[in-house]
Amino acid sequence: MPERLGPPREAPIFRRLALVGLGLIGSSIARAARRQNLATEIVAADSNAEVRARAEEIGLADRVYADVADAARGADCVILCVPVGACGPVAKAMRSVLEPGAIVSDVGSVKGAVMAAVEPHLPEGVQFVPAHPVAGTEDSGPDAGFSTLFAGRWAILTPAYGVEADAVERMRAFWEGMGSAVEIMSAPHHDLVLAITSHVPHLIAYNIVGTAADLEEVTRSEVIKFSAGGFRDFTRIAASDPTMWRDVFLNNKEAVLEMLQRFNEDLSALARAIRWDDGETLHALFTRTRAIRRGIVSEGQDAPAPDFGRPRE
Amino acid sequence: MPERLGPPREAPIFRRLALVGLGLIGSSIARAARRQNLATEIVAADSNAEVRARAEEIGLADRVYADVADAARGADCVILCVPVGACGPVAKAMRSVLEPGAIVSDVGSVKGAVMAAVEPHLPEGVQFVPAHPVAGTEDSGPDAGFSTLFAGRWAILTPAYGVEADAVERMRAFWEGMGSAVEIMSAPHHDLVLAITSHVPHLIAYNIVGTAADLEEVTRSEVIKFSAGGFRDFTRIAASDPTMWRDVFLNNKEAVLEMLQRFNEDLSALARAIRWDDGETLHALFTRTRAIRRGIVSEGQDAPAPDFGRPRE
Ligand SMILES: NC(=O)c1ccc[n+]([C@@H]2O[C@H](COP(=O)([O-])OP(=O)(O)OC[C@H]3O[C@@H](n4cnc5c(N)ncnc54)[C@H](OP(=O)(O)O)[C@@H]3O)[C@@H](O)[C@H]2O)c1
Ligand SMILES: NC(=O)c1ccc[n+]([C@@H]2O[C@H](COP(=O)([O-])OP(=O)(O)OC[C@H]3O[C@@H](n4cnc5c(N)ncnc54)[C@H](OP(=O)(O)O)[C@@H]3O)[C@@H](O)[C@H]2O)c1
Repeated sequence: MPERLGPPREAPIFRRLALVGLGLIGSSIARAARRQNLATEIVAADSNAEVRARAEEIGLADRVYADVADAARGADCVILCVPVGACGPVAKAMRSVLEPGAIVSDVGSVKGAVMAAVEPHLPEGVQFVPAHPVAGTEDSGPDAGFSTLFAGRWAILTPAYGVEADAVERMRAFWEGMGSAVEIMSAPHHDLVLAITSHVPHLIAYNIVGTAADLEEVTRSEVIKFSAGGFRDFTRIAASDPTMWRDVFLNNKEAVLEMLQRFNEDLSALARAIRWDDGETLHALFTRTRAIRRGIVSEGQDAPAPDFGRPRE
Repeated sequence: MPERLGPPREAPIFRRLALVGLGLIGSSIARAARRQNLATEIVAADSNAEVRARAEEIGLADRVYADVADAARGADCVILCVPVGACGPVAKAMRSVLEPGAIVSDVGSVKGAVMAAVEPHLPEGVQFVPAHPVAGTEDSGPDAGFSTLFAGRWAILTPAYGVEADAVERMRAFWEGMGSAVEIMSAPHHDLVLAITSHVPHLIAYNIVGTAADLEEVTRSEVIKFSAGGFRDFTRIAASDPTMWRDVFLNNKEAVLEMLQRFNEDLSALARAIRWDDGETLHALFTRTRAIRRGIVSEGQDAPAPDFGRPRE
């Protein structure tokens, strides 16, 4: 998948795009949509005054509002780029201004719970096309975003039965315009896939960093000094936004706990292999895992160069 | 800690340095020692004919042998750069040629078991100064090495009681010459520290990649496609050398199982917080883990720039 953006569109997809939340994801969409000519006008809302001030300063949108309804009014597409737990309340706050035919979408890392929270607030005729760009970094806020964040990455759409095909196709074109490849799946399947490829990895990264911080036999300074042996890569993931991730776990409970259960069973078997000096089982697993890595590199989802924790000389 | 190498030494530390094993670590030492003028002559042994041929081709050492004793003969310093489980047999193979006063060292990721396996084979008067450079990548082999691998990283020495201070100081100077900072600690403490900062992180990375590969509800192709949500970072770690890591776990069993136990207890508590909708506990942990990350970045053990899985535009 190409990692660079193609030429901008000749004609925009949306007349007025409203982004609610101008953090990492919202500000990246603003930049990409502007650069690729995906909307004639881009308006935004954010509840954080500092974020609004910064957005004005760097010109992220044509107008930036404190109030969600002000941004959503008259928009033919509204995308919620707020933590998963805020999607329901935001939908409620804009219900009175949404016009039939308008598209509402989001970028939440969980889809089932967001759909359940948002749908009841949407007026008849509004098309809800939930989305999740599988792209991101451990940073947040409007300065963390950049226009190529989604290029060469996947965006998953999870529209419910009955949504107009035209609305889904416009959202597909929108994500493709930002360089993503689009896949459509059901929300429950999305939540299971992401539980194993994203949510549980974050949970265990947060967990081991917590375990290391609490040890009495090993000092915090030792943990930091000797982190280059593998630990530092977990701290990178465990530096992700606490609010976003709290919301992810609370809203994808079932799939996360299910996948965690499998992880635990496998880990018990591994611990047993270590206890019983079963080097063959260990070697076999450690060899098998390399195939997945090769797949990821050959599909362009990670750079092949090894990581030294610093730019190579 | 500076990440670059300083000027080369005016006078070498060793007359003849013998490296056994020319993989990632051995070949990096060869390159750094040559560049920094740490030894007048560098000889090497490797059991792998392809590795020897490649080493000759790129001129890693002055002479490359198949037989360990041939390399160790006449050396005033021999460093074992082979998997942890091979250190005992290699020590045995060179016992007859080691001269009193010579220093024997290693680079194994485990120290207690290596000391127990090597010491019985060393003739009277040979000084054993075990070492572990806390630096590495997921790649292996002679082409993966480079001369600045150890610069700005820690090297841990774990000499036993009674080793001559002069031998320890020469090994310290050797690692400092390659840009490392040196810390001396006991082997059991080393093994505990590395269990949490390196061995358990590798174990859980291997484990989750294995779990993901075995799922029936989520295809392998989905795992690969949607890996950018966090999973891909674990696959990088889980691409490390199977033989090296099998040996690490079998030789640091006790500390690894102990730390894994703590990890599991903490993970159960986290799972409970998710099950009980206890967002506060989650948010508190996710906030606490950021402090450790900041420590690692400010101590220069990782680059602060976020990771997108590719070079930033
Ligand atoms: N980060 C990733 O890697 C990633 C990847 C894919 C999808 N996502 C999803 O994208 C969404 C946003 O994540 P992000 O990383 O962009 O977060 P972020 O950088 O923290 O930005 C979120 C922004 O929304 C604002 N906000 C919060 N509640 C609001 C409300 N009720 N009304 C208006 N604005 C509100 C926040 O203000 P405050 O600063 O006051 O909180 C902040 O400026 C989340 O649902 C997340 O699951 C994230
Ligand atoms: N990789 C890291 O990140 C890292 C970091 C710190 C410390 N360490 C430690 O460094 C040591 C070496 O690791 P590495 O990554 O450099 O491994 P590597 O790249 O696999 O290199 C090891 C080399 O030693 C050879 N070898 C194996 N057994 C031998 C024997 N009995 N006699 C002579 N040569 C033998 C291997 O040949 P074959 O190719 O035939 O196996 C290979 O060429 C290990 O003890 C490891 O714990 C590694």
